[in-house]
Amino acid sequence: MLKPLGDRVVIELLKAEEKTASGIVLPDTAKEKPQEGKVVSVGTGRVLDNGERVSLEVAEGDRIIFSKYSGTEIKYEGAEYLILRESDILAVIG
Amino acid sequence: MLKPLGDRVVIELLKAEEKTASGIVLPDTAKEKPQEGKVVSVGTGRVLDNGERVSLEVAEGDRIIFSKYSGTEIKYEGAEYLILRESDILAVIG
Amino acid sequence: MLKPLGDRVVIELLKAEEKTASGIVLPDTAKEKPQEGKVVSVGTGRVLDNGERVSLEVAEGDRIIFSKYSGTEIKYEGAEYLILRESDILAVIG
Amino acid sequence: MLKPLGDRVVIELLKAEEKTASGIVLPDTAKEKPQEGKVVSVGTGRVLDNGERVSLEVAEGDRIIFSKYSGTEIKYEGAEYLILRESDILAVIG
Amino acid sequence: MLKPLGDRVVIELLKAEEKTASGIVLPDTAKEKPQEGKVVSVGTGRVLDNGERVSLEVAEGDRIIFSKYSGTEIKYEGAEYLILRESDILAVIG
Amino acid sequence: MLKPLGDRVVIELLKAEEKTASGIVLPDTAKEKPQEGKVVSVGTGRVLDNGERVSLEVAEGDRIIFSKYSGTEIKYEGAEYLILRESDILAVIG
Amino acid sequence: MLKPLGDRVVIELLKAEEKTASGIVLPDTAKEKPQEGKVVSVGTGRVLDNGERVSLEVAEGDRIIFSKYSGTEIKYEGAEYLILRESDILAVIG
Repeated sequence: MLKPLGDRVVIELLKAEEKTASGIVLPDTAKEKPQEGKVVSVGTGRVLDNGERVSLEVAEGDRIIFSKYSGTEIKYEGAEYLILRESDILAVIG
Repeated sequence: MLKPLGDRVVIELLKAEEKTASGIVLPDTAKEKPQEGKVVSVGTGRVLDNGERVSLEVAEGDRIIFSKYSGTEIKYEGAEYLILRESDILAVIG
Repeated sequence: MLKPLGDRVVIELLKAEEKTASGIVLPDTAKEKPQEGKVVSVGTGRVLDNGERVSLEVAEGDRIIFSKYSGTEIKYEGAEYLILRESDILAVIG
Repeated sequence: MLKPLGDRVVIELLKAEEKTASGIVLPDTAKEKPQEGKVVSVGTGRVLDNGERVSLEVAEGDRIIFSKYSGTEIKYEGAEYLILRESDILAVIG
Repeated sequence: MLKPLGDRVVIELLKAEEKTASGIVLPDTAKEKPQEGKVVSVGTGRVLDNGERVSLEVAEGDRIIFSKYSGTEIKYEGAEYLILRESDILAVIG
Repeated sequence: MLKPLGDRVVIELLKAEEKTASGIVLPDTAKEKPQEGKVVSVGTGRVLDNGERVSLEVAEGDRIIFSKYSGTEIKYEGAEYLILRESDILAVIG
Repeated sequence: MLKPLGDRVVIELLKAEEKTASGIVLPDTAKEKPQEGKVVSVGTGRVLDNGERVSLEVAEGDRIIFSKYSGTEIKYEGAEYLILRESDILAVIG
């Protein structure tokens, strides 16, 4: 299992076919292209200046839209993942 | 439904015809061109350093003016949306 | 009506003739050229890290001097306005 | 009257003759050339993150040295003024 | 022993063979290439503005993925180490 | 008298001969060349976000080493001074 | 004696021979080359936004590894020293 640190999340990338099924079509002209993924695991959140830790707004299983060029791609046990900061997530598809 | 995170909002873009009707005409010389949209959904707000979450000043249904080159365009279930941070919104048309 | 967000203000631009009348003459050599305007509406103020909202120092009707290249110009119901942040306002003419 | 906002001050520029009289001579090699002025009016001060407003250290009538290329020059009712932030003031001549 | 300061950690680099065994394969196209290491020692944590020190989320013995070009390589008593800030660690392999 | 503002200090520059006497020799290869001076007057200190003012660590009469290209040179009543921020002072010679 | 200000430390540089004895060998390919030194004196620490002063983690006599191009070199009473900020220190050798 990959446990991200702080306000990071591990994302499973959704294939292009799945994207069409979910109805998200991204225009070519968008400078910051969003993409769709599913949250696999979340960090414990960032620590505020008062010492409080802020839980993430997303949870395991959420389908999300994130900014395309954000995060770091890794392969783990044969599958591809992306490790993002929560601030790179634009919206949850609910 | 698209649920934006933090201080983000999902905006439905208003067409040029609608803009004329509402009386907003944007000069060509403006470097940072504003545009008009309608708020579709809002995030839960950003978290302050004291742990408090600040609700957004805009609400679903508000007609707003925002800076043109801000945000990320997406298509969702056939409609075009823009995901903005609240700080990119200049004013509410009331 | 245009209701600006946060620490923004909506300004009605004063014409060059009015400026002469009020006695403000701007030197050509000023790199950051100030200009004169009248406040039309003000936002609710920015939120501090302790959650408190700081009311603006300027109010509707104030004549102000602001930095020339700041803000965003818009046209609304036939009139020209400028949307500024309060930090772009240099002084109130009292 | 010009009432500056926040931590800004309005300065009356002192002529070169006055400067010699007060004994300030500025070397030509100084990259950030200081200059001398007299404080005409002061703002109410900047707001801290705890909501407190910090009064300015300078007061009306103070003779000050400031960094040359800082601030914005304006003409008001026939006289020249400079609007500075307090942080651009180096010292008070007492 | 090397005792890192603040929010730094000392990492023992894992060899390429060990990486394959643990199932992490890094794509060539990743701009910010992650790598795998084992935590050897951790600092006491960074100090918040309220004076509180935040303990690190990683502990001695943890296997971690970090951003490739972060940190400083050193040799100490014949072994190679990397000194990282915790913010350069992406995830713990658990 | 020159009274510096905030966390600034007024420094009297020490001549090269005095420097040799005090034993400070500066290598030519140092990119950020330190220099020696004597503190003539100090500001009241900077204001923290909790409203508290932090007194300076240096006092009138202290001999200090500072970074060479920092601060602003002025001449006042025939003598040369340098106005520095306390953060440009590296050490006190005690 | 040299008394550094704030979060600064004065470091005595260790010669290359001493480095080999202590077992630290620095690879040539490291972009940010670390070096070894001995702490001669430490400042009183930086001041937090709550007014508290944070003592340094290093103490007189500690052997430390620091980033090579950080700090300012000075000669004082015939010996060479380096004045660093604590944040430029990577680890203590214990």
